[in-house]
Amino acid sequence: MSRHLLLIATSNPGKLREIEAVFAGFPLHFEDLRQYPDLPAAVEDADTFMANAEKKALYYAKQTGLPALADDSGLEVDCLGGRPGVHSARFAGRHGDDQANNVKLIELLGNVPLDERRARFRCAIVVADHGTVLARAEGTIEGLIIDEPRGENGFGYDPHFLVPDLGKTTAELAPEHKNRISHRGQALRSILDALGHIFAR
Amino acid sequence: MSRHLLLIATSNPGKLREIEAVFAGFPLHFEDLRQYPDLPAAVEDADTFMANAEKKALYYAKQTGLPALADDSGLEVDCLGGRPGVHSARFAGRHGDDQANNVKLIELLGNVPLDERRARFRCAIVVADHGTVLARAEGTIEGLIIDEPRGENGFGYDPHFLVPDLGKTTAELAPEHKNRISHRGQALRSILDALGHIFAR
Repeated sequence: MSRHLLLIATSNPGKLREIEAVFAGFPLHFEDLRQYPDLPAAVEDADTFMANAEKKALYYAKQTGLPALADDSGLEVDCLGGRPGVHSARFAGRHGDDQANNVKLIELLGNVPLDERRARFRCAIVVADHGTVLARAEGTIEGLIIDEPRGENGFGYDPHFLVPDLGKTTAELAPEHKNRISHRGQALRSILDALGHIFAR
Repeated sequence: MSRHLLLIATSNPGKLREIEAVFAGFPLHFEDLRQYPDLPAAVEDADTFMANAEKKALYYAKQTGLPALADDSGLEVDCLGGRPGVHSARFAGRHGDDQANNVKLIELLGNVPLDERRARFRCAIVVADHGTVLARAEGTIEGLIIDEPRGENGFGYDPHFLVPDLGKTTAELAPEHKNRISHRGQALRSILDALGHIFAR
């Protein structure tokens, strides 16, 4: 069985870890953006996760000549009108500053009671090659935002994202448990279903 | 079996028709916003369909004292960065002007080839009562945007929304067929599942 080369178009170590864990055992070799340090970052100026993921996948596929998988994901808090949404990674200004983003989120929520802090993580994944979108998928997970961070796993807003049925934040879950239920895990499994047909050609 | 009174918090006749068709046969009586002509419209300024639906459901439940169901829905076109998105109903300026909205959409797409005109309808539905959210649900349907309108059913962007597997726009589908597969039909069936437990109390 031949192995296909796929660019995981992210330099976020948390996303990389989760993607590689779901894809383990499939006949794929990976590169990621750490192997392309001189490549200018893709512009992420769309209003939706799916449109941003598509932009990134098409851009990195074109720049590298490889089939590229891009993930755009984030947190929507209903009582904040859906913010931080597509701005999740740069909510407090600097891209990927998890701590500052979490501080800003909890400050904004102020005295809002827990049952009005409904939120969801949303993940859109697109795989593109040579100017063509090969597959797209989405996943979501519902939760509540808590003031005090809990747990050491995951990344981003995970320590503040409580899954009510489990009584745990997504940062308190073992990585394989998070991937089984998370927005990204769902989207990745859907993408694998689609890629199976494509890469089997 | 007692019948429960539910406010369908919309004055859009297309949405009302689809909601009432899915809810037919359930022990519910409906009112809608046409019975409250003096009520100021809810503010819809959130970034997501879900957050707007929640705002509307909470607002109209408070204003009327009834359990209220609100729908926020629209079209996301990937190559337009997700637009018109939450601005779907007022894309061309005036709320609910389907024809002007469609003209603007097709103009913006210009010479983009069909296979790059990926889009989805997204629908969020929230039911609230006395300041509390009772249930929330989402649905999506994927399609492609075509230049020439086709079909007389549906409303909004339906005549330009091609469902590739069917070779038909959602405006060419019989209403019951559209409801079986549409974003709104999916969300409504999920809400009914949740309401069944609540209204059975």
